[in-house]
Amino acid sequence: MRGRIIRTVTPGTAPGALEPPRQRVESVEIQVVCFDADSYQEMKVDRIDEALGAIEDARVTWINVIGLHDVELLATLGRRFGIHPLALEDVVNIGQRPKHEHTRDHIFVIMRLLHLLEAGERGRPRRPGPGAGRGGRLEVEQVSLFFGRGYVLTLQEIPDDDPFEPLREQIRSGSGQVRERGPDYLAYRMIDILVDSLYPVLERYGERIERIEDELLDRPTPELLSEIQDLKRELLWIRRTAWPHRDLVTGLQRLEHDLISAETRLYLADSYDHCVQLIDVTNTFRELATGLTDLYLTTTSNRMNEIMKVLTIMASIFIPLTFIAGIYGMNFDPESSSLNMPELHWAYGYPTALALMAMIAVGMVLYFKLKRWL
Amino acid sequence: MRGRIIRTVTPGTAPGALEPPRQRVESVEIQVVCFDADSYQEMKVDRIDEALGAIEDARVTWINVIGLHDVELLATLGRRFGIHPLALEDVVNIGQRPKHEHTRDHIFVIMRLLHLLEAGERGRPRRPGPGAGRGGRLEVEQVSLFFGRGYVLTLQEIPDDDPFEPLREQIRSGSGQVRERGPDYLAYRMIDILVDSLYPVLERYGERIERIEDELLDRPTPELLSEIQDLKRELLWIRRTAWPHRDLVTGLQRLEHDLISAETRLYLADSYDHCVQLIDVTNTFRELATGLTDLYLTTTSNRMNEIMKVLTIMASIFIPLTFIAGIYGMNFDPESSSLNMPELHWAYGYPTALALMAMIAVGMVLYFKLKRWL
Amino acid sequence: MRGRIIRTVTPGTAPGALEPPRQRVESVEIQVVCFDADSYQEMKVDRIDEALGAIEDARVTWINVIGLHDVELLATLGRRFGIHPLALEDVVNIGQRPKHEHTRDHIFVIMRLLHLLEAGERGRPRRPGPGAGRGGRLEVEQVSLFFGRGYVLTLQEIPDDDPFEPLREQIRSGSGQVRERGPDYLAYRMIDILVDSLYPVLERYGERIERIEDELLDRPTPELLSEIQDLKRELLWIRRTAWPHRDLVTGLQRLEHDLISAETRLYLADSYDHCVQLIDVTNTFRELATGLTDLYLTTTSNRMNEIMKVLTIMASIFIPLTFIAGIYGMNFDPESSSLNMPELHWAYGYPTALALMAMIAVGMVLYFKLKRWL
Amino acid sequence: MRGRIIRTVTPGTAPGALEPPRQRVESVEIQVVCFDADSYQEMKVDRIDEALGAIEDARVTWINVIGLHDVELLATLGRRFGIHPLALEDVVNIGQRPKHEHTRDHIFVIMRLLHLLEAGERGRPRRPGPGAGRGGRLEVEQVSLFFGRGYVLTLQEIPDDDPFEPLREQIRSGSGQVRERGPDYLAYRMIDILVDSLYPVLERYGERIERIEDELLDRPTPELLSEIQDLKRELLWIRRTAWPHRDLVTGLQRLEHDLISAETRLYLADSYDHCVQLIDVTNTFRELATGLTDLYLTTTSNRMNEIMKVLTIMASIFIPLTFIAGIYGMNFDPESSSLNMPELHWAYGYPTALALMAMIAVGMVLYFKLKRWL
Amino acid sequence: MRGRIIRTVTPGTAPGALEPPRQRVESVEIQVVCFDADSYQEMKVDRIDEALGAIEDARVTWINVIGLHDVELLATLGRRFGIHPLALEDVVNIGQRPKHEHTRDHIFVIMRLLHLLEAGERGRPRRPGPGAGRGGRLEVEQVSLFFGRGYVLTLQEIPDDDPFEPLREQIRSGSGQVRERGPDYLAYRMIDILVDSLYPVLERYGERIERIEDELLDRPTPELLSEIQDLKRELLWIRRTAWPHRDLVTGLQRLEHDLISAETRLYLADSYDHCVQLIDVTNTFRELATGLTDLYLTTTSNRMNEIMKVLTIMASIFIPLTFIAGIYGMNFDPESSSLNMPELHWAYGYPTALALMAMIAVGMVLYFKLKRWL
Repeated sequence: MRGRIIRTVTPGTAPGALEPPRQRVESVEIQVVCFDADSYQEMKVDRIDEALGAIEDARVTWINVIGLHDVELLATLGRRFGIHPLALEDVVNIGQRPKHEHTRDHIFVIMRLLHLLEAGERGRPRRPGPGAGRGGRLEVEQVSLFFGRGYVLTLQEIPDDDPFEPLREQIRSGSGQVRERGPDYLAYRMIDILVDSLYPVLERYGERIERIEDELLDRPTPELLSEIQDLKRELLWIRRTAWPHRDLVTGLQRLEHDLISAETRLYLADSYDHCVQLIDVTNTFRELATGLTDLYLTTTSNRMNEIMKVLTIMASIFIPLTFIAGIYGMNFDPESSSLNMPELHWAYGYPTALALMAMIAVGMVLYFKLKRWL
Repeated sequence: MRGRIIRTVTPGTAPGALEPPRQRVESVEIQVVCFDADSYQEMKVDRIDEALGAIEDARVTWINVIGLHDVELLATLGRRFGIHPLALEDVVNIGQRPKHEHTRDHIFVIMRLLHLLEAGERGRPRRPGPGAGRGGRLEVEQVSLFFGRGYVLTLQEIPDDDPFEPLREQIRSGSGQVRERGPDYLAYRMIDILVDSLYPVLERYGERIERIEDELLDRPTPELLSEIQDLKRELLWIRRTAWPHRDLVTGLQRLEHDLISAETRLYLADSYDHCVQLIDVTNTFRELATGLTDLYLTTTSNRMNEIMKVLTIMASIFIPLTFIAGIYGMNFDPESSSLNMPELHWAYGYPTALALMAMIAVGMVLYFKLKRWL
Repeated sequence: MRGRIIRTVTPGTAPGALEPPRQRVESVEIQVVCFDADSYQEMKVDRIDEALGAIEDARVTWINVIGLHDVELLATLGRRFGIHPLALEDVVNIGQRPKHEHTRDHIFVIMRLLHLLEAGERGRPRRPGPGAGRGGRLEVEQVSLFFGRGYVLTLQEIPDDDPFEPLREQIRSGSGQVRERGPDYLAYRMIDILVDSLYPVLERYGERIERIEDELLDRPTPELLSEIQDLKRELLWIRRTAWPHRDLVTGLQRLEHDLISAETRLYLADSYDHCVQLIDVTNTFRELATGLTDLYLTTTSNRMNEIMKVLTIMASIFIPLTFIAGIYGMNFDPESSSLNMPELHWAYGYPTALALMAMIAVGMVLYFKLKRWL
Repeated sequence: MRGRIIRTVTPGTAPGALEPPRQRVESVEIQVVCFDADSYQEMKVDRIDEALGAIEDARVTWINVIGLHDVELLATLGRRFGIHPLALEDVVNIGQRPKHEHTRDHIFVIMRLLHLLEAGERGRPRRPGPGAGRGGRLEVEQVSLFFGRGYVLTLQEIPDDDPFEPLREQIRSGSGQVRERGPDYLAYRMIDILVDSLYPVLERYGERIERIEDELLDRPTPELLSEIQDLKRELLWIRRTAWPHRDLVTGLQRLEHDLISAETRLYLADSYDHCVQLIDVTNTFRELATGLTDLYLTTTSNRMNEIMKVLTIMASIFIPLTFIAGIYGMNFDPESSSLNMPELHWAYGYPTALALMAMIAVGMVLYFKLKRWL
Repeated sequence: MRGRIIRTVTPGTAPGALEPPRQRVESVEIQVVCFDADSYQEMKVDRIDEALGAIEDARVTWINVIGLHDVELLATLGRRFGIHPLALEDVVNIGQRPKHEHTRDHIFVIMRLLHLLEAGERGRPRRPGPGAGRGGRLEVEQVSLFFGRGYVLTLQEIPDDDPFEPLREQIRSGSGQVRERGPDYLAYRMIDILVDSLYPVLERYGERIERIEDELLDRPTPELLSEIQDLKRELLWIRRTAWPHRDLVTGLQRLEHDLISAETRLYLADSYDHCVQLIDVTNTFRELATGLTDLYLTTTSNRMNEIMKVLTIMASIFIPLTFIAGIYGMNFDPESSSLNMPELHWAYGYPTALALMAMIAVGMVLYFKLKRWL
């Protein structure tokens, strides 16, 4: 099994019903970071109420919830932030297409985070992406993001490889502008990180395409074929992440909403540039991957040609020779008639026969040289 | 025969003429469900008038007609609800492209329901989809839906596998919001169910693609080729369902009509997300299916290569050896001349010949090792 | 020759010059049908003036001209109905792309009618379509249509298989609504008939694709290859009919012109649905036809594989055996030395050699079983 | 060399600098035609001033300049008609994409004229098109056209095969409407002629595609492969002419400029129809040409199959027979043991061996019949 | 390694942070050119302040900075010209998609300059393009351009092959219009040069495609396969340059900004024509390159056919002959029975056998002639 590339919706379930995902972390973790330009505070809380109490309009509170199976907690968040049940359903039913929605009070963003694991790498069990079965590689994670006045709320499935760690580090150290700006800028930085998470993945794919191409030209093996097939499938998967990210970013950019400042809009234009470049590269890679199959076919065809040439040359040279040897292996009785194989009794019969064979062999070789097969 | 993928319209028949479909259930079945937030009533009626009498503006009456061959009944419905003859023609002439139309008093929706039967599965005879002939699999059913003030009217071809059963169950139990809302929400739920009916179908196709790919890499057989061809045809068919569903849902969402409330419009946005995702997955599957043909070709090419290599190696090794054996099988008369095959009388003639053969054989094997064919 | 798929325009001829087509019926035939809700009259006239005299605003007069070579007649029609010379040129120069134009007084529509003849079927010589040369099949006819206040004027090339016969029958019998409505409805019915004329054609192509596919999987022959090529060419041709028909119908639907009533516009929406479905099916067929070439290649590849396997197995088994037989056919003189072929004089020499051969043969068979070639 | 398919612009040259083309006629030729509805005058002049002097607002003066290398003359024209230096640069730097531009006083149109020469045909040296190197066929010429109040100015590269000759003939004889209308109609007629110049070219390509297809099915040769490649390249070239012509015509049609009358706009709609049809046909041809490569591959594959079958059948029948002959050619000594080849001394030994061989041969033939290879 | 085709963005780095590129020139070079219609001054300065001091509104000052690693200098420029940190980041992080941005005071343009080096050509180490690893060929350089009132600021990575040298020469000599116009015209000239830099590159690709095609038809080698693959990759790369250049130019043309005069807008239309033509040619080349792979496959297929034919003919002729020779090499004892190989003792046994062989050989040759294999 190479993992599911669609989430199955059971037709007929009521919309807005919260069915928590199967794979769950042991316990939900809640991280809270509060900051303004001057102060900074970071804590882990057990109960969501403590986190909610920390929210103030004048500073930014970032609540990061890891683990999506606590229905109670989600319901509390829904009530506190006025989140529509359909949005909560989207948060929980992982496998959503990236998108954004907004109410008057908050903006809701769903994005995908791709991890490319090394072939042998093991981690906590995550939701496997399409290549997970073969080489344990491409993994996808859904990250949900709500931001409103004074707060940013993020919801992740798993705690490993937190993509936001560099951002948290910047908040801690006060570097960059994140401490001086509002929740929209923080949200932009998160969106930017999630968009950019495709860069290292694609770079690895670029190297992989080059490696496969080199190996193909060297020696086409069935394993490479299967790897090309995986590659194509995974690039389709990546495209299914990159395109909606672009739509999302351009949608946010154009959204007339007072939660997004003009300055943040400018930064989103930069994310948009990245999205376009990522799609561009994905398309280029897809065309290159298609070229690999052609390359495989032509290389195989080439090798077949070479094999056929060896067979043809060997057979064409020796078959006539063997025939001549066969002639003089016949047992016609020379005593019955002087017409019966008189050559056998010629003094130079054997050398003549060998010479004839040599001439035929040389002639064939010359013919093949002429055909440029040798 | 793999079933018809188009409905034939006899050119020249007058529009609006009702020609009931051939395959019919034994008798038309009429189910009526009436409900409001507080009360609930379910009945089967024999005559459509009983059903029509139950309609009241203040509650929702859902009339479900199973079987489309009773022209009289359809004409009655047409008169009662002011349905245009062209719309009734569309209801009866199954094989319509999914679409919606509206008058001032009702909205008319035609959708498709796909069933994917197991290879051996038999049911009542339905209209076969494109894969029906081979493995008895993909079946398509047309569902028509009218909704107006106080009523929803659905018309289905066959009674089996009623897709609306979970919905009916929710109405009975009062779970979800369906009891509290109007006919537009009920209609939305039905549309959502019909859209989502593609999810389990596509999931099965995903598994099928993976299975074919695994089998292909293991051993390409003509049966797989024929299965890939079926797969492609069926995905084209699914695409022809998914695309119009998206157009339909987005059309309803944008329709300025007082029969659709703002809240329902919001829910339709959710259905739209599903449609987009389904189209996305269908396209991905289509690209994967195209890749399967390439994979078949390259795998076959590979196997041919392997076969050719065995042939070439066998022939190339033994043909020269056989030639040498042939040489010393010649009957040149050693007594005629000392030039005639003196080797035959050498003390070490035979061992030398065998050694020569062994050297040639080893030489060829080394050559093939060098070429990496062994 | 498979027929021309373009009309050649001689560059430099003046626009509006009438060059009548070569293939002509013996004499131009003029059919006139006049009707209103209560009365009905049908006649054949010799002179166009009689037909023109019959036109009254209060009823519908349908003048059907069969044969386009009477320049005089066309000029008379042009003067009477105020037809622009460029439009008349389009009527006469068959091979136009379907389109519509309008003046204040009439609407002008050019459409195509496709006939799919049986392979052996002969009729009057028509303008051959692209498949005409091979199997005498696809034929195309241009039908021009003008309608204005009180009249519909149709111009056809040939009298056979009149597509409007069912319509004429309905006018005669007064069934349907055609008698109660105006010329725009009559024109719509004609357009609908011409659009729908593709249905039976496409249905036959659907059957043909399935037949070719079945035959391909059974046995790929060069004849099938040539048939697939024909199929592709003919589907390109059909597409070149279906697309402009859609543009035409949607154009008429949106045309703000008082010659088209709101009700007729509603019916045109129905024709539009048909057009979209026809294009849909044509595209599906084109993709299936492309798949057929792939199927051909892979099936051929498959058969080649099978042939190669038989060859390889035969050769690989017998070549070593023949070599061993060759060894013991050598004439080394056992009397010269005890090293020279002592096996020949062993008591069990022959049985041992046979046993060795049998072992090699069994070994090869097992090897091929292992490779799953047997 | 198959000709350049791009004009090289040396990066860094100043815009508007006139670099006359290399290939030049011996001397520039200036043809002047002046006409109104009643009078007509035609002359060849040596100095451009004479031509310019003939221009009057009340009639149409058509100045046709053949040869583009007289920088002086072009500068004079530029001053007289107020032509922007960039436009003059476009006139001289042949290889422009067809387009139109306008100032308040004139409209400037650049178009391409394609000639399809017979394989052996020689003419004056023109700028070769992409197929020129192989079979001397497709040639392209740039025609520039300025028209303003009272005049049309055309600039051509070479005097042969003047496309406007039929038009000039019509002006002379006063047939058609050209004498009664203004410069815009004359310009339209020229544009129409240049658009239509693709018709005879495409018709020849249609015949060529059919011929190649027939030859392919008969016998695929490497020459055909090279011809298909040429065909594809040339169709790409034709497309690169047809598309901009369409954009140009539709642009002129929509241009709000008092130099183009409403009537001429109507005629341009006719040219637009031609453009659309030409693009349509070009696309169809391109798809057919792509199909030809597939056809080549499959036909080759077919022939390989046939060849392999002959080889396999020959080898499979004779290899076992030869083996049996080899067996009884062995020299085991029957005197050493009664187990050593007793068959050789059986009375029916030889007939039995022959019968065995015959049975094997018949068996193989039957097997191949069963496989339908015979 | 064939070079990176994407710039990796480390997800999580703060936007606007300046990370200078690795490959750097030894020291940053600053060239200043000041001119107006009458005067001209050119100098190299060490400190950027000297350059900045030279700017006056009444004339044009062109500051050209070569080398991007001096963060201090860039910061100074940012402050002086009010450049947004994100723009400076784009200047430094080479590998940007070409684009333009504007503030009220300046317009910012990023473009790409492609160099196509000869296979053996070495220069200073630049950022390698996608083909750099194989044949040292395609190289890409990023050029940034700011222009505002009285100044144009350009930033390049490397000093070699300065594309602006011809422009500088024109400024020096006062030829063309550049001395008489403002900074927008100077910027247009630079954009035009960078757009046109693709012309010589594409022309070389055109020649390369023709060369590969000729070589392919002559003899398909694996090296050509690898070269076709390179070609495709490099054309993808060129397309990724040409498309954004077009968007950039059309964007500038439509930009309502008082820094761009109407006249310059007119010149940009000319650059736009070039962009469209370049994209056109790139697409044509891409289709031709795709055709090359097909050509390779078919040519290889062809050659395989030829090889198979030789093998089949040789084998089919000699295998039956060898069999006959084998027959008469059998040792059946004629003395045991008169049925045992009586032919051996016939007077004409040997000539008859030879004649039989000759007849079979001639028969096979005739058969192959009939099949047109000879």
